[in-house]
Amino acid sequence: MKSQTAIRGIMNNMEDSIFTKIINGEIPCHKVYEDDEVIAFLDVHPMAEGHTLVVPKRQIDHVWDLDRKTYAHLFGVTKRLGKHIRTVLQATRVGLVVEGFGVPHAHIHLIPIEHGDDLKRPQDMSAPIDHESLAAVAEKLAVTSIFRV
Amino acid sequence: MKSQTAIRGIMNNMEDSIFTKIINGEIPCHKVYEDDEVIAFLDVHPMAEGHTLVVPKRQIDHVWDLDRKTYAHLFGVTKRLGKHIRTVLQATRVGLVVEGFGVPHAHIHLIPIEHGDDLKRPQDMSAPIDHESLAAVAEKLAVTSIFRV
Repeated sequence: MKSQTAIRGIMNNMEDSIFTKIINGEIPCHKVYEDDEVIAFLDVHPMAEGHTLVVPKRQIDHVWDLDRKTYAHLFGVTKRLGKHIRTVLQATRVGLVVEGFGVPHAHIHLIPIEHGDDLKRPQDMSAPIDHESLAAVAEKLAVTSIFRV
Repeated sequence: MKSQTAIRGIMNNMEDSIFTKIINGEIPCHKVYEDDEVIAFLDVHPMAEGHTLVVPKRQIDHVWDLDRKTYAHLFGVTKRLGKHIRTVLQATRVGLVVEGFGVPHAHIHLIPIEHGDDLKRPQDMSAPIDHESLAAVAEKLAVTSIFRV
């Protein structure tokens, strides 16, 4: 489904981010969840199994600059997904990181963690992408019913 | 002000966390913001100037397990503080981290960052605490009026 809210960053003359291309179906992803305003899919260079990105469909650079309603919905979905991932993957915790230097389109990292410094491990962005493994994890995590946030 | 919502974790027979002791005024802090449900103060071992912790007054271990209303308010305050810190300290970005292994009381790190891997730097928990510097930063960042979230 190509959502009506998958809006290009026209106002700021921005180019479509890689996330907007994913939202628009131009680039495939290992999807975990989607609604009209938010999409969640697996990071192709996971720091841990189940490393998920939660992304507002509207292309805004900084998460702090999202309008209040979109921000609240984004973090509401993130709460549900954080609990969901923790349960399905039996993770000790699911950490949350917003950093934003990689892609100028607000996104939240959800990363299963077992120890205190797990979020500080380097992320190898040049590692080969294991689509078979990612597809299996996405199938385990996929939220097929619309959950209330 | 000792808030009525600074509740001990009686239900789980938990001991008061260091954050609950701060909330109850038993341990001082370099406070940035406070309302009935949330407090924000500077991390005494900052990863960068302005490193702030945003903490729900109710002592719950995992942020995902907060009730919806408290969670929404916590992240609403975090949004305002993220923008506020970015503006006051003229930071390129303000990153957000929830990890939770250090203190079993949900808390959000807000950390001014200038480069992609700034959030992965080690945090020296044994460094001497520079209260004078922290007090000066807290004075710059203190939110004295109640802002709507």
